[in-house]
Amino acid sequence: MYTCSLERMKDKIKTFSTFGDAGHGGITRYSLSPAAIQARNEFIRRMKAIGAEIETDDVANIYATLPGSDPAAKRIVMASHVDSVKNGGNYDGILGVMSAMEALETVASEKIPHRHPLTAMIWTNEEGSLYPPAMMCSGIVCYDYLPEDIAQKFKYEDMLNSKSILDNKSTFGEALEASGFKGERKNRISPEKYQYMFETHIEQGPILEDEGCDVGVVDCVLGMFNYRVRFYGQTVHAGTFPMKKRRDAFYAASQALCWLHEEIDRLGVPELVYTTGEVVCHPCVHTCVPDYFDFSIDARHEDPKVLEKVLAIVKSCADREWAGCRCEVVKAWNRDTVYWDKKLVGYVKSAAEGLGVSHRYIHSGAGHDAQFASYMLPTTMIFVQSKGGLSHCEPEYSTPEHCTEGASVMLNAVLRADQD
Amino acid sequence: MYTCSLERMKDKIKTFSTFGDAGHGGITRYSLSPAAIQARNEFIRRMKAIGAEIETDDVANIYATLPGSDPAAKRIVMASHVDSVKNGGNYDGILGVMSAMEALETVASEKIPHRHPLTAMIWTNEEGSLYPPAMMCSGIVCYDYLPEDIAQKFKYEDMLNSKSILDNKSTFGEALEASGFKGERKNRISPEKYQYMFETHIEQGPILEDEGCDVGVVDCVLGMFNYRVRFYGQTVHAGTFPMKKRRDAFYAASQALCWLHEEIDRLGVPELVYTTGEVVCHPCVHTCVPDYFDFSIDARHEDPKVLEKVLAIVKSCADREWAGCRCEVVKAWNRDTVYWDKKLVGYVKSAAEGLGVSHRYIHSGAGHDAQFASYMLPTTMIFVQSKGGLSHCEPEYSTPEHCTEGASVMLNAVLRADQD
Repeated sequence: MYTCSLERMKDKIKTFSTFGDAGHGGITRYSLSPAAIQARNEFIRRMKAIGAEIETDDVANIYATLPGSDPAAKRIVMASHVDSVKNGGNYDGILGVMSAMEALETVASEKIPHRHPLTAMIWTNEEGSLYPPAMMCSGIVCYDYLPEDIAQKFKYEDMLNSKSILDNKSTFGEALEASGFKGERKNRISPEKYQYMFETHIEQGPILEDEGCDVGVVDCVLGMFNYRVRFYGQTVHAGTFPMKKRRDAFYAASQALCWLHEEIDRLGVPELVYTTGEVVCHPCVHTCVPDYFDFSIDARHEDPKVLEKVLAIVKSCADREWAGCRCEVVKAWNRDTVYWDKKLVGYVKSAAEGLGVSHRYIHSGAGHDAQFASYMLPTTMIFVQSKGGLSHCEPEYSTPEHCTEGASVMLNAVLRADQD
Repeated sequence: MYTCSLERMKDKIKTFSTFGDAGHGGITRYSLSPAAIQARNEFIRRMKAIGAEIETDDVANIYATLPGSDPAAKRIVMASHVDSVKNGGNYDGILGVMSAMEALETVASEKIPHRHPLTAMIWTNEEGSLYPPAMMCSGIVCYDYLPEDIAQKFKYEDMLNSKSILDNKSTFGEALEASGFKGERKNRISPEKYQYMFETHIEQGPILEDEGCDVGVVDCVLGMFNYRVRFYGQTVHAGTFPMKKRRDAFYAASQALCWLHEEIDRLGVPELVYTTGEVVCHPCVHTCVPDYFDFSIDARHEDPKVLEKVLAIVKSCADREWAGCRCEVVKAWNRDTVYWDKKLVGYVKSAAEGLGVSHRYIHSGAGHDAQFASYMLPTTMIFVQSKGGLSHCEPEYSTPEHCTEGASVMLNAVLRADQD
């Protein structure tokens, strides 16, 4: 078994944390922003230093490849992203890129023999924080392999026209042209040229920490649905309209939300998560009773039958009045559980065992570029313990030791895969 | 008893409804906008036609005065506003101005003798829809008479600097200079020159309609408090964080809102109204558990002891955790019940009785310029039935018959006051 370098990993964490440093412990590093370009240049500098060949494709994904001993063998890629959400942390995405670099640096410094070319890769615009949607460039590249209803959200021309959320004017296509990283379409990751994909990522949840595991052997990305629950009441004046005649959409939504928690929790399903994170209130004025209130509901679980039961409860909200308000339940989207390649999951587990790294099987509740890639190539993921389960925020943290262990597990799994 | 003209009132309703017509039954007529200036010019045209003298003061309030027989007598003023909320209706505010015009037109056409000068007046910027706050110019003019905590919100210089909500740049002061209606400070309504103020307004609630009354004899503006109820949780990822460890601020707020309804309704207080109309949710993203949720609570009742009891319930929200979230209750403002001048209320009631107009005593739940004027002058209000209790919206409606009855009641009350 090979182990990666804790010192090199610490140096990478320190260096990459400066690109987009927001000054209070975290970063804002939108895709293709000056901060993201600093991170890309640092990636290229480090990869050139170990003799990797650099390529970019037509959506600025970057590939750094160490040749293998067999000129006919396909590449094995380790990939993640360098972009972040607004006021995000120093680990989401970038850890996967740092781990890929670390794996290649270990291969180079220890002159580890390998048959396949090994590639470290940066996916462009995973977060979609400046130019929506999230997972944009894996969506574009994997377009032909994705289920129709997912693919249609990632049409190349539509993506180029995606507007900045900051000015609602400048486009992803313009940022791509200006970045200096736009390459050739023929360089895109594809099943013809690539054999397997691995992605290391922070867990973004507290399960590994709670169970004392350093690393997670990820087996799937959970299936989910996303719906909107809407309430229609009547706007009247706060001072003049008797309580008994009111139809208050915010009160209706609050009643329904409490009821949903009761009903869904009554199912008693372990590992189910559901979230009502986004709200719209109209007119949202302190002197008016709201005539419209809308909340999102996002539910995730491995078993589609569980999601069906939860969805039936959510839909039944529309069968009754809430505080005199009509309720409507509208689908935004859903997706099925995506299982990682069983053989690769086995390689990850064996690597963790071989290294003596504490680990467990775990599902991914979040979406990742690996999820789209898995429609195209055998793919899997490795999770690294997240302190407190926090992510997409500045306190996001994983210890350098755990980060290095994650990279070592990925390296050894890749080296096992190299024997196929 | 004198009666106003239904035909003239219909003509005014029709004409004024064109100024700022939004094309689907209502108007948007921000203060000092081109639409408001059309309304002001029409007011001046009609008032000049009956021989009234026109004056404006330094905040563009307009005064149209018919002289009385006693040169030493103070003026009696009938006032309201011509500005509206966004997508408002054809009655809120403008009905009081049309009623004042109608009263003077009746005095002029029927050559009704009167000792006091009689004034129809337009208050500038009652709604504060473009340049906050509401009741801006009555706040400025009545500044020296208002309770200290209210007055400090209406400092003249601050008001001139109030920025447009549309561009967050252009100011009320600039609009005032550009309007052509800025006059002299000495023309401001004051206790030295004015004896009484009357304001006719739509009810904005359903009580008169429900009880079959055409007109309301208003006795007070309800006391109120406005607080914010805030919940502090933790943002975590929708897909990765187990339900049991979550601290969801939106769920916390929903539980607290349902509890507040139960507890406050348990008091069983008739005529109490409370409203939770404005919400803030952070980060308000469908894939994140909200870490912050905040709602306004506005409660109104005549009796301060009732408001105290309600406030104690609201404040007690902060004594416990809601869905694992800390709760904080913060005061925005409050005001005491303002009673109208008892003598003038009696004149209004006598006028309604004398005219045989169906009526009842009623409180005003909404704020009006009359409320600030009452700190300076004996003041009262007349309400006109609102269809369905709707206001601040396009379906806002009062029949021309009810509008004319309201004007007749005001005219006869003014003529009785003229004998003082």
